[in-house]
Amino acid sequence: MRKIGIVGIGHVGSTVAHIIIAQGLADELILVDKNTAKLAADELDFRDAASLLRNHVTVYAGTANDLADADLVISALGHIDLIKPGGDRFTELKANTPEVQQVGNDLKKVGFNGVLIVISNPVDVITGMYQKFTGLPTNQVFGTGTYLDTARLKRVLGEALDVDPRSVKGYMLGEHGDSQFAAWSTVQILGQDIQTLVSRYNLDLDKIANDARVGGFTVFNGKKYTNFAIAHAAVSLAQLVLSDARSEAIVSHYDDKFKSYISTPAIIGRGGVVQTFNLPLTSDEETALQHSADAISEKTIDYL
Amino acid sequence: MRKIGIVGIGHVGSTVAHIIIAQGLADELILVDKNTAKLAADELDFRDAASLLRNHVTVYAGTANDLADADLVISALGHIDLIKPGGDRFTELKANTPEVQQVGNDLKKVGFNGVLIVISNPVDVITGMYQKFTGLPTNQVFGTGTYLDTARLKRVLGEALDVDPRSVKGYMLGEHGDSQFAAWSTVQILGQDIQTLVSRYNLDLDKIANDARVGGFTVFNGKKYTNFAIAHAAVSLAQLVLSDARSEAIVSHYDDKFKSYISTPAIIGRGGVVQTFNLPLTSDEETALQHSADAISEKTIDYL
Amino acid sequence: MRKIGIVGIGHVGSTVAHIIIAQGLADELILVDKNTAKLAADELDFRDAASLLRNHVTVYAGTANDLADADLVISALGHIDLIKPGGDRFTELKANTPEVQQVGNDLKKVGFNGVLIVISNPVDVITGMYQKFTGLPTNQVFGTGTYLDTARLKRVLGEALDVDPRSVKGYMLGEHGDSQFAAWSTVQILGQDIQTLVSRYNLDLDKIANDARVGGFTVFNGKKYTNFAIAHAAVSLAQLVLSDARSEAIVSHYDDKFKSYISTPAIIGRGGVVQTFNLPLTSDEETALQHSADAISEKTIDYL
Amino acid sequence: MRKIGIVGIGHVGSTVAHIIIAQGLADELILVDKNTAKLAADELDFRDAASLLRNHVTVYAGTANDLADADLVISALGHIDLIKPGGDRFTELKANTPEVQQVGNDLKKVGFNGVLIVISNPVDVITGMYQKFTGLPTNQVFGTGTYLDTARLKRVLGEALDVDPRSVKGYMLGEHGDSQFAAWSTVQILGQDIQTLVSRYNLDLDKIANDARVGGFTVFNGKKYTNFAIAHAAVSLAQLVLSDARSEAIVSHYDDKFKSYISTPAIIGRGGVVQTFNLPLTSDEETALQHSADAISEKTIDYL
Repeated sequence: MRKIGIVGIGHVGSTVAHIIIAQGLADELILVDKNTAKLAADELDFRDAASLLRNHVTVYAGTANDLADADLVISALGHIDLIKPGGDRFTELKANTPEVQQVGNDLKKVGFNGVLIVISNPVDVITGMYQKFTGLPTNQVFGTGTYLDTARLKRVLGEALDVDPRSVKGYMLGEHGDSQFAAWSTVQILGQDIQTLVSRYNLDLDKIANDARVGGFTVFNGKKYTNFAIAHAAVSLAQLVLSDARSEAIVSHYDDKFKSYISTPAIIGRGGVVQTFNLPLTSDEETALQHSADAISEKTIDYL
Repeated sequence: MRKIGIVGIGHVGSTVAHIIIAQGLADELILVDKNTAKLAADELDFRDAASLLRNHVTVYAGTANDLADADLVISALGHIDLIKPGGDRFTELKANTPEVQQVGNDLKKVGFNGVLIVISNPVDVITGMYQKFTGLPTNQVFGTGTYLDTARLKRVLGEALDVDPRSVKGYMLGEHGDSQFAAWSTVQILGQDIQTLVSRYNLDLDKIANDARVGGFTVFNGKKYTNFAIAHAAVSLAQLVLSDARSEAIVSHYDDKFKSYISTPAIIGRGGVVQTFNLPLTSDEETALQHSADAISEKTIDYL
Repeated sequence: MRKIGIVGIGHVGSTVAHIIIAQGLADELILVDKNTAKLAADELDFRDAASLLRNHVTVYAGTANDLADADLVISALGHIDLIKPGGDRFTELKANTPEVQQVGNDLKKVGFNGVLIVISNPVDVITGMYQKFTGLPTNQVFGTGTYLDTARLKRVLGEALDVDPRSVKGYMLGEHGDSQFAAWSTVQILGQDIQTLVSRYNLDLDKIANDARVGGFTVFNGKKYTNFAIAHAAVSLAQLVLSDARSEAIVSHYDDKFKSYISTPAIIGRGGVVQTFNLPLTSDEETALQHSADAISEKTIDYL
Repeated sequence: MRKIGIVGIGHVGSTVAHIIIAQGLADELILVDKNTAKLAADELDFRDAASLLRNHVTVYAGTANDLADADLVISALGHIDLIKPGGDRFTELKANTPEVQQVGNDLKKVGFNGVLIVISNPVDVITGMYQKFTGLPTNQVFGTGTYLDTARLKRVLGEALDVDPRSVKGYMLGEHGDSQFAAWSTVQILGQDIQTLVSRYNLDLDKIANDARVGGFTVFNGKKYTNFAIAHAAVSLAQLVLSDARSEAIVSHYDDKFKSYISTPAIIGRGGVVQTFNLPLTSDEETALQHSADAISEKTIDYL
């Protein structure tokens, strides 16, 4: 039986729940939130849909106590409502910190020993907090990191070349925040490396990277939240964990070199991050990654 | 190629779009809304998800012009924000009427000749309006009607007997509004009719019907909208149309006897409502259905 | 984690495996067969497909030892090659008996305590054997029984009325063999009972029941096996078990009244047959069910 | 509406049909085969499954006349039964040629103007024949080519490194036959190129390429046919066409340089092969590709 818990049933958490239910990716799904009215509304809305769905999923509103034997917990809590135009993901840090501490302590107390996937922002810092508060091994706690930013990069490049974004290879690395960067040496489309692509398609790489980076804010400005793409990113990762896929994905995982959570690709399976590896980068990219790690560390220090 | 349009990209419309995209139920999906900021945000959010999904769906924001050759259009426009506690679905009628007229006229003008599925409330009245404004044959225009209320009835009965709501047979009939009623003679669970179930499980039918009827308001009160169950209801119907399933479903369809759109089961296929039939009812249920048809007609007259 | 074993990787077993893999219904799938060449071929063919599939499923050829902690085992072993034109499902009984004894004993020995779904024919007798050899509680062992015959009845009736077979309600009851019968009092289509349907659509019920009953032989005669429909029946049941759906389905389950395995509807969930109930039948149908139970018992005695 | 035809309902064709039906990838599916007994058996078996499936697909046995307005036709005809141990795919050429001519002419006669995906072997030669006999533009006719061999290469490399084969990048190029080769310069796993992988994991590249190349024969020797992986390869390509995905895939497509059908990656969409590109290769790989093209051409000349 596959048992998943979601903590934080706002726009993102409820969309994560929706995908899991609609696709039958859990057998038991527990929704946890402090806002009991919203929680009850979503719980009932999901139950109302049950006779219309292909798969049976037992869904209920619960607490950390119900998560003791969960295979997987997804943290989607947040305070995106606090973000002002021009603000960044660190605006949420102060508001999220006490809740993360509470949830982390609760999970530790009930003996949760599954995998914890963190969406809550600023995700690199929050994922580190969760690891400390839960006391779980670092590999069992990871964040969605730049998985979504990478998906945005693929969207922008796919549109530029009129190819399916699923046919674009490459990564946004580093912080899920301002210091992230497109690792152009990892990009490949139509079998061509980035230099060839730039000359052949007259690409403006700065513009492309920026379009990918600000994608979230465009969505945010239009509806005051983002949910679909980030929820699919989190659910994709959940599937890799539950099926023990041992598949490559870019996530915010603990990097011993930087003493920090930061996004580079890793191998995801039943135990969470089951293998890491050194992605070959240019020296400029190595520098940018170090810079991004520094940015995460500084913010961690500033706010903790 | 399956081409679907959705008019109205609020909570319901965007959830309908999400299910269609996540499950690959269209090859081309056009999103139409007057709120261009929200529209652009959802369009981008869906495109950001494209590299994470199993199926390719071409999604874009458009106008009625893009719907000329659509196989199917789903109307999810509405003003649920206008509904106050204690209000009902007719609160939306005044606000929705001019928009429905506009959309209906636009669809007529561009020569749309597919199937139109209406979610917009009050659904029975609005569906009738759409049929008039589009000039489409009555069978090509139908509403979700009490499909959702029926799903709620199955949820309540399933919970009462601890069985999967998919194993509950039966219908809520009539108006998607206060005059709807549970047609108990159509209910069957564990091979038992309702009299046997009442005596064996000590069921309080009034309470059950009421729980089903007010389900929407419980969800609404908690989050100020309902989206998941209603969106799955609409998408289920869309699938029956696109695959020409000739499958039984309860929808708000034009009933010659009542000269009105009202919900009873019908056969849904490529042409919309491809067959109707007389559901055997008790005389009390026949009376209740007539009463519900009257309620729809009165409101139609009042507001048009 | 969902762990499923399939014993018997012939036409049916490999199709069951295929559906499970293609739809990601297990996380770990163990294939068991005495024919090691066929087993290795299917194992490799499935592994060759892995990079093309949406879900990761760990598939490997194994033995009963690998099934100790399986959630579910499906028995698809058989000797359909022994069936001659004009023969019946009992032709296989002699050949299958020692293998069933071996598998049952092996499962007992390794301490298997999940649910066992039996497809092997003659399924009512074989399911009874499995229950004895494994020593599992009767509810944890059930057979596909007349689930497939019921699907065939729905196909024939759906074609007669030009409606989706998913919109046909009703059951074939009794033995998955010659003594099965259509329980016409349970049939309902377009809201009409069978008497109304007969008069309105001029149905020949004997012909319809016979078409459903001989459906398997028509398929068998054309390709010397049947696989698609029976495999989907088994997988549907497996999903109900794994998701603890508590859903109604017709299966061959142990009936205390008949002291035999025989098909009537029951509630299927995590524990297998988690609830039984008395299906209201006409007295003719009660007699036919008793007759069918006698047929199963006689054959059981003859061959054991 | 999505209309697909499958010509040749043997092991591969029926598995292709099964995947399409089980996953609802067509609205109308026409099965065509000269063996009317097998054809009728599969048709009935699929129809028997209809009430058990999520999606409605209209399935029927037909002829080329029914394919006039199909979006897509898949050729799975073949005579794999003629292949002896030690034989190769060209053994089938003589037997398949007159059937391909017949089908091609029939499709031309009825005015079929969709996309034709060829599985029939030897696929590179047969695909060329189909293009000539149908008179379709070269981009509308392509073969599965080394898509399956590439999947096998990913399987072997994935097992060697204990990673999901979906995380292995790279291609088998050239003929779907003996002269195919692993284009090592295109292989990338864990962000590493092949040289790094060889030294780090002590890989024996000749053994790996050979394991991938002979994979089909291992499967064939065990069950006298291969079906699952090849059917998923064909269906994956069909989905790219129907959804106009513009996605990269390796297929046997017409290469103007070689005046032959041969496998290198291309962009697949609604029109079939909607874009080609030059894959950067080492000079050794360029030579191997030329050699493989020569092998295809020679066999084409020998047998036509």
